[in-house]
Amino acid sequence: MISKLIDRIEKTGAPIVVGLDPKLGFIPDDLKKKCFEEKGANPEGAAEAFWQFNKEIIDNIYDVVPAVKPQIAMYEELGIPGLITFKKTVEYCKEKGLIVIGDIKRGDIGSTSESYAVGHLGQITIEGNSFSGFDEDFATVNPYLGSDGVKPFINVCNKEDKGIFVLVKTSNPSSGEFQDRLIDGKPLYELVGAQVEQWGLESMDGSYSNVGAVVGATYPEMGKVLRDIMPHAYILVPGYGAQGGKGKDLVNFFNKDGLGAIVNSSRGIIAAWKNEDYKKYDGNVGAAARAAVFDMKEDIAGALSSR
Amino acid sequence: MISKLIDRIEKTGAPIVVGLDPKLGFIPDDLKKKCFEEKGANPEGAAEAFWQFNKEIIDNIYDVVPAVKPQIAMYEELGIPGLITFKKTVEYCKEKGLIVIGDIKRGDIGSTSESYAVGHLGQITIEGNSFSGFDEDFATVNPYLGSDGVKPFINVCNKEDKGIFVLVKTSNPSSGEFQDRLIDGKPLYELVGAQVEQWGLESMDGSYSNVGAVVGATYPEMGKVLRDIMPHAYILVPGYGAQGGKGKDLVNFFNKDGLGAIVNSSRGIIAAWKNEDYKKYDGNVGAAARAAVFDMKEDIAGALSSR
Repeated sequence: MISKLIDRIEKTGAPIVVGLDPKLGFIPDDLKKKCFEEKGANPEGAAEAFWQFNKEIIDNIYDVVPAVKPQIAMYEELGIPGLITFKKTVEYCKEKGLIVIGDIKRGDIGSTSESYAVGHLGQITIEGNSFSGFDEDFATVNPYLGSDGVKPFINVCNKEDKGIFVLVKTSNPSSGEFQDRLIDGKPLYELVGAQVEQWGLESMDGSYSNVGAVVGATYPEMGKVLRDIMPHAYILVPGYGAQGGKGKDLVNFFNKDGLGAIVNSSRGIIAAWKNEDYKKYDGNVGAAARAAVFDMKEDIAGALSSR
Repeated sequence: MISKLIDRIEKTGAPIVVGLDPKLGFIPDDLKKKCFEEKGANPEGAAEAFWQFNKEIIDNIYDVVPAVKPQIAMYEELGIPGLITFKKTVEYCKEKGLIVIGDIKRGDIGSTSESYAVGHLGQITIEGNSFSGFDEDFATVNPYLGSDGVKPFINVCNKEDKGIFVLVKTSNPSSGEFQDRLIDGKPLYELVGAQVEQWGLESMDGSYSNVGAVVGATYPEMGKVLRDIMPHAYILVPGYGAQGGKGKDLVNFFNKDGLGAIVNSSRGIIAAWKNEDYKKYDGNVGAAARAAVFDMKEDIAGALSSR
C-alpha cells in the first residue's frame, strides 16, 4: 500500500494529507441550518452536516492531493450517526481515488488488536463470505502495548495490502512526558522508532515499508534523528499549520529524494474559508480549501528546494 | 462515579467485572443460525447474535456482579452494526443497574481526546440541547500522549461524574517491551503509575479517585509495587482466567480493606458453557456464566482471606 501512496504523491507533487476532522464550528451556518431542518438539530443532523461539509472539501481537493486522514474521534463524538458519516466519507474518498488514512490510534492486546485491524483494514468472514467494517487504506496505531499489540495490524497489512503509521513522537505539548524520557541514554521515542523500523521489515513494499511512523511537525530536531533511525518508514507528520509547524520545520522529515514524509493539515485546509487570508473566496468552503492546499504545497516545496 | 462502583462491589461482595467481549466462536450454533436467518449471514446477523448472546449473559449475572466491561474492538470489527450492538449493550446494562466500563483504550492530542471523552462519557451540545454518544460510566484510556491526552477525559469525569482507568501495566506478554524499560532506575510503568496518582487527585470521590489504573493479573509482583505507588487509584485487573492469572495472583492488587481492585474475566465467564468444568449446564450460556461468576468470586475471596 505504501507504494500506491508514493505513486499518488509523485503524481500530485504534493506530500500532503488533508485531515477531515469536522467540527460544528467549522461548518457554515447556512449548511448547518439546512441539515438541522432536514434531519433535526441532533446528532443525525450534525452527522449530515459533517457529511455535506466533507463532500464539499473532497470534491475540491481530490485531484490535487494524494490522501485524506479522517480523525475518527470527531465522528465518534456524535455516536452512531457520526460513525455512519465516517464510513460514508471513507467510501466516497476511495471512489474519488484518494488514499484514506484512518486516524484511529487503536492498540490493544493481541487478539483485541486483531479485531481492530480486521474492522478497519481487513475483512471478517461470516459463513464463508467476507465483509469489511470501515476499510481504510492505512490506520494509525498506538505502540504502548508492544509488539503483540502491533503485529496483528501488520498481519492484516500483509494479507490485504494495507498500511499503518505507528505513534512515535506525537505533536502535542505534553508528548515528552513519557516519550522523551531517557532509557539507556536514549529517549523512549527513539526506542519506539527503532522498533517501528524492525516491524517494518516484515511488510516491505518497494523501498519503503507499509509500517510508517507518526512524528509531529512541532518537533523538527527529533524528526531529524528519527528520519535516520527509520530509513524504511514513511513519516506521517501532523502538527503543521494550526498546531504551529511551518514549512521549514518539515525539511528534516524528508529524505534527499523528496520522499519519506507526508504532512497533514486539518483546520488549515478545511476551515480555510474562515481564515482572513482566504477572504476573497467569500466563504466558499471548497474553493478556500483548494487554495489552502496550493499554498501548503508551495510552502513545502519552497522549504525543500532551499535546503 | 468510583464511589458508586465501590458501593455496588460491597453490595454484591464480588470485586468482579464481566468482560462482554463476544466472538462468533463463543455463540451457540442454534442462536447464530436463528440470527443469520433473521438478519442475514452478514455483519447485521452477527451483530444481532452478539446482542442476543450478551442479553442472555446480562440477564443471568446482573444481580451478582457490580460491573461489565464491553471491549469495543469486538463490536468495531463488525463495523456499524457491531457498534449499534455495543450501544444497545451499554444501555441495557445500565437499565439493569450494572456499571459499564467501556474498554476503548482511546487517547489522542488534547482537542481530539476531548471528542473521545465527550463521545464515550459526556454529552455533546447541539443548538442548546444535549445528546450522548455511547454514555459508558467508565472508559479505559491510553497514556502514551501524556497529560494533555488524559486531562480532557478527567474534565468530562468531573463534569458528568464518570471515571477512567488508565493503562499502566498491561496483561499481554510483550507489555514489557516499552512499559518495563528503566527510566532513572525505575520502569516506565511506575512513572505512569505515579502520574495516574497525580491525575487522580484532580477527581477524588471519597477515598478513591475517578482516575483508576489498568494493571494485568499476569504481573502480580508489579501489581504490588503499583498498589503502593497509587494509593487513591482503583485498579482494574485484566488477565484473570484465560490469560493465565489466578486468584492468588490477585491478592497484591487489593488493599487491606479488601477494596482497591476489580478483576475482569471475559472468556472464562461468557464462554463458560463451552468449558468442560460447566458441562452439567448442558450448553446453557447464562446458567454456566452465572456459575462461573460464583466460582470466580469464591476463588478471589479464598485468596484474600488466606493472605
